Amino acid sequence: YGRNTIKFLRLHREGKKHFVKEVEVCTHLRLTSAQEYLDGNNSLVIPTDTINNIVLVLAKKNGISTLEQFAIDICNHFMTTFCQVAYVKTYIQEVPWQRLHENGVPHIHSFIYVPDGIRFCEAEQCRNGPLVLFAGIKDLKLMKTTQSGFEGFYKNEHTTLPERNDRILCGELFCKWSYGECRNFDFDCIWNKIRECILEGFSGPPDCGEYSPSYQKTVNRIQMLILSKVSQVQVIEVILNNVFYNVVDMKNLGLTNDKEVLVPVEAPYGSCTCTLGRK
Amino acid sequence: YGRNTIKFLRLHREGKKHFVKEVEVCTHLRLTSAQEYLDGNNSLVIPTDTINNIVLVLAKKNGISTLEQFAIDICNHFMTTFCQVAYVKTYIQEVPWQRLHENGVPHIHSFIYVPDGIRFCEAEQCRNGPLVLFAGIKDLKLMKTTQSGFEGFYKNEHTTLPERNDRILCGELFCKWSYGECRNFDFDCIWNKIRECILEGFSGPPDCGEYSPSYQKTVNRIQMLILSKVSQVQVIEVILNNVFYNVVDMKNLGLTNDKEVLVPVEAPYGSCTCTLGRK
Amino acid sequence: YGRNTIKFLRLHREGKKHFVKEVEVCTHLRLTSAQEYLDGNNSLVIPTDTINNIVLVLAKKNGISTLEQFAIDICNHFMTTFCQVAYVKTYIQEVPWQRLHENGVPHIHSFIYVPDGIRFCEAEQCRNGPLVLFAGIKDLKLMKTTQSGFEGFYKNEHTTLPERNDRILCGELFCKWSYGECRNFDFDCIWNKIRECILEGFSGPPDCGEYSPSYQKTVNRIQMLILSKVSQVQVIEVILNNVFYNVVDMKNLGLTNDKEVLVPVEAPYGSCTCTLGRK
Amino acid sequence: YGRNTIKFLRLHREGKKHFVKEVEVCTHLRLTSAQEYLDGNNSLVIPTDTINNIVLVLAKKNGISTLEQFAIDICNHFMTTFCQVAYVKTYIQEVPWQRLHENGVPHIHSFIYVPDGIRFCEAEQCRNGPLVLFAGIKDLKLMKTTQSGFEGFYKNEHTTLPERNDRILCGELFCKWSYGECRNFDFDCIWNKIRECILEGFSGPPDCGEYSPSYQKTVNRIQMLILSKVSQVQVIEVILNNVFYNVVDMKNLGLTNDKEVLVPVEAPYGSCTCTLGRK
Repeated sequence: YGRNTIKFLRLHREGKKHFVKEVEVCTHLRLTSAQEYLDGNNSLVIPTDTINNIVLVLAKKNGISTLEQFAIDICNHFMTTFCQVAYVKTYIQEVPWQRLHENGVPHIHSFIYVPDGIRFCEAEQCRNGPLVLFAGIKDLKLMKTTQSGFEGFYKNEHTTLPERNDRILCGELFCKWSYGECRNFDFDCIWNKIRECILEGFSGPPDCGEYSPSYQKTVNRIQMLILSKVSQVQVIEVILNNVFYNVVDMKNLGLTNDKEVLVPVEAPYGSCTCTLGRK
Repeated sequence: YGRNTIKFLRLHREGKKHFVKEVEVCTHLRLTSAQEYLDGNNSLVIPTDTINNIVLVLAKKNGISTLEQFAIDICNHFMTTFCQVAYVKTYIQEVPWQRLHENGVPHIHSFIYVPDGIRFCEAEQCRNGPLVLFAGIKDLKLMKTTQSGFEGFYKNEHTTLPERNDRILCGELFCKWSYGECRNFDFDCIWNKIRECILEGFSGPPDCGEYSPSYQKTVNRIQMLILSKVSQVQVIEVILNNVFYNVVDMKNLGLTNDKEVLVPVEAPYGSCTCTLGRK
Repeated sequence: YGRNTIKFLRLHREGKKHFVKEVEVCTHLRLTSAQEYLDGNNSLVIPTDTINNIVLVLAKKNGISTLEQFAIDICNHFMTTFCQVAYVKTYIQEVPWQRLHENGVPHIHSFIYVPDGIRFCEAEQCRNGPLVLFAGIKDLKLMKTTQSGFEGFYKNEHTTLPERNDRILCGELFCKWSYGECRNFDFDCIWNKIRECILEGFSGPPDCGEYSPSYQKTVNRIQMLILSKVSQVQVIEVILNNVFYNVVDMKNLGLTNDKEVLVPVEAPYGSCTCTLGRK
Repeated sequence: YGRNTIKFLRLHREGKKHFVKEVEVCTHLRLTSAQEYLDGNNSLVIPTDTINNIVLVLAKKNGISTLEQFAIDICNHFMTTFCQVAYVKTYIQEVPWQRLHENGVPHIHSFIYVPDGIRFCEAEQCRNGPLVLFAGIKDLKLMKTTQSGFEGFYKNEHTTLPERNDRILCGELFCKWSYGECRNFDFDCIWNKIRECILEGFSGPPDCGEYSPSYQKTVNRIQMLILSKVSQVQVIEVILNNVFYNVVDMKNLGLTNDKEVLVPVEAPYGSCTCTLGRK
């Protein structure tokens, strides 16, 4: 049981300059007993209201240096404070506020909401077990308008898809990776580096791109790039939910449509998931 | 990988009387090879477009007698047709059309959308393994305005929640159960019986209700009722996401509010999950 | 300016039997002055927090006998209490709780959420003007699987739609009507009567239906029925947002699909709006 | 009647460099006759399917140089082609794809979805009347963490809001303006200039900000700035839906919260609308 979407803003001031971190926190516990389920005996139950207070108090006391550190703080607090807690899991998602710029000058206390990929992290711990830490990005939508195809696939009597060597590749990415023994990592730096790997793995070089023979191969390319460039990552899961773009057939309308007008097909959509780790 | 939200309507006619079953199907496969990820070799990949066609063809040929039977049909088709499929999973959700009634008379071909709890099922199978079948209900919102409290819980310096023996209990329920060896069950009948158990477990007798000392106990009561009344169910998972209703303090406004005006608090919300099986 | 989505539950008890009315209220004001915009002088501004309190206090004091009466109460309060208010408008929407039934027996304090058409109303008033009252239903989704066609329409070089005399008609309805001089109407009774007219106008008789030659004609039929049966209604606006269902072409798959498998096309969707009043 | 959310992507290539414009178009017509409503006579009805085709054909033939020009093209087409059209209105909204940059280098064919304010425009025309053109931005979320207060407002027995001279101001902005006689404006340039005015009017100078005594005054400041800097704008409507942030009271928890931890209150929310034109 637990408390979902505890939303709050942590405001930090350095002189006149303000820094904001707005987050949504979900924290779930499993207790060592089951008497509250079986007998309605609540004596060991930590109310979700108390969970809520603890999260806010930790934010007040510690601040949120990084999402990951804050998730670690929350797990530690529950494990060390409550001996009836058998397991704790906390998920934190960041509200994507970015500092506002006016003509290139950063504003000291104004922010704009820019949801181009949501950062999140997750920490979980069993009593007597290690803390396991994950981080990730979700709702990142990318599109490349060429250098993508899908050919040579398996065919039978239910196949109607034509082979194509030039299509639009568009999708929403979800990436989640685990850290090994997490010592004092610079989580912000790592997260930004991984985001760059995703963009590069998806798009290829800026001047020519790189051909994608399938969604699967693109997913793999992203994973390989991250594992090769970011040593702290142990395992990485990528989900690519793809939106198809159909070239509109304009023959009936007396026109030749050379992939100029395309219609997105949002449902049904394909999905491709792969988890890759180090040997 | 797979295809999500394949939406379609299966229309069945018996004379002038029409029957509709509109569904959303998600079907995911895992192949025995990984060459499409590593080498971009697509020769074993069944396009999601083909998956889509297969689902529609099965619907056309077999009809949808029950969601569960249709899920079984889909799994069987993929396992018997494609030897490169290592694992198949299919999820089906029903669009809640109900036959329209005019002054109590059922209409022969008109329907109304009534989303008071969405029916779904899931089937999965590994090559050489048994087919495992689940069914469930989601998005079922219930409220009882008394006969609910929360007292005697664990307290420490972060506790601010007062004890209460008369509060509103309101939540959204998700229930998912597994069938054991599924022979020829009457899946519609079982589903309706379980829905009744949920309503009864949540609410108690219609003339007086039954006191709930916690969300946990209510979840357990629902599970115990289902296990005792529906022998085909092996394991049942229940998630109750609860919305709190705060009694508005009107002292400042010169009024005494005897739990007459309450404000829902939609976020953060509490959540309570429990999985219960037979011995 | 104003306050949107003030959500609250009004609980009414008669002995052990409970009655609930959960609503969302939006209340907007226009003041006689503009000094708060031009000079930042707030002296006449009624804070939205105060608007919120007033709505809750009125609910506590008066209860919510009907949505419409409560909307009238709110308008009256603002007009008589604040001479700086030039115009007030309030919109109220009901959360669709229905009393739970167990084996046909109504439960004294348990409710289920059944969103099969949301009831709303709106009242507005200018200083020195009459109070104008509207009521309506929205998010009502209906489908008929035959007795609908579309033929004889205008054609030119951009026409690709075939003529059809047997298609599915499916749409989401929004209806909003105005009352004339509203004396002591039984608003609940009228609303239910209008809902029945909508279902009947859309579907026709339960044993055979009635042929619809276009969305436009169906909209008109609904309006005519309401105006003929409900004398209190002066003007009625209907919006029908229709979802198309395409018959899947299965020729490539070696099958003849006799309108058995259809795919909904949710975007783009057609929309048809018409406002009709009495002479 | 009309066709909503016609979604498509217009791809334009200059050598190896690709340019995308993905839009959602809604086009509504009113005909000179009403026979389709009254008699079910469809002979003048232009099917929404034809409307859809026309929009796609215009996109193919003309391209989308700017949203505004495309809206003008659509209106012109319907007015000149169909004499039964009494009125046409078209709304176009852009899907916020931005060119991807890798280490500062723009990619030739990759794009990222960045929804930090959605651009839209609207054109409408009655037969024998002028074409009226609007443009706008919506879903633009901004926050300033100081330099905002609300004091000196009207008080009575329902007032509970305290006066504050340092609060968070956060809201979602909707701005829509009309152009006068629209000759050959540079619509992209104007739109960007207005977006900058909004950011500046909301935030004030980057090094110190500017005090906002109310939402109303901030709305007015934005409008005044636009009217003074952008001569092509005739009338401008601004809606500011504000999210309140409550400072969490931590006294019970033994802590002093100096506006460090705040909780957003998403409903109910305040709303402030103002329309301002030139004399």
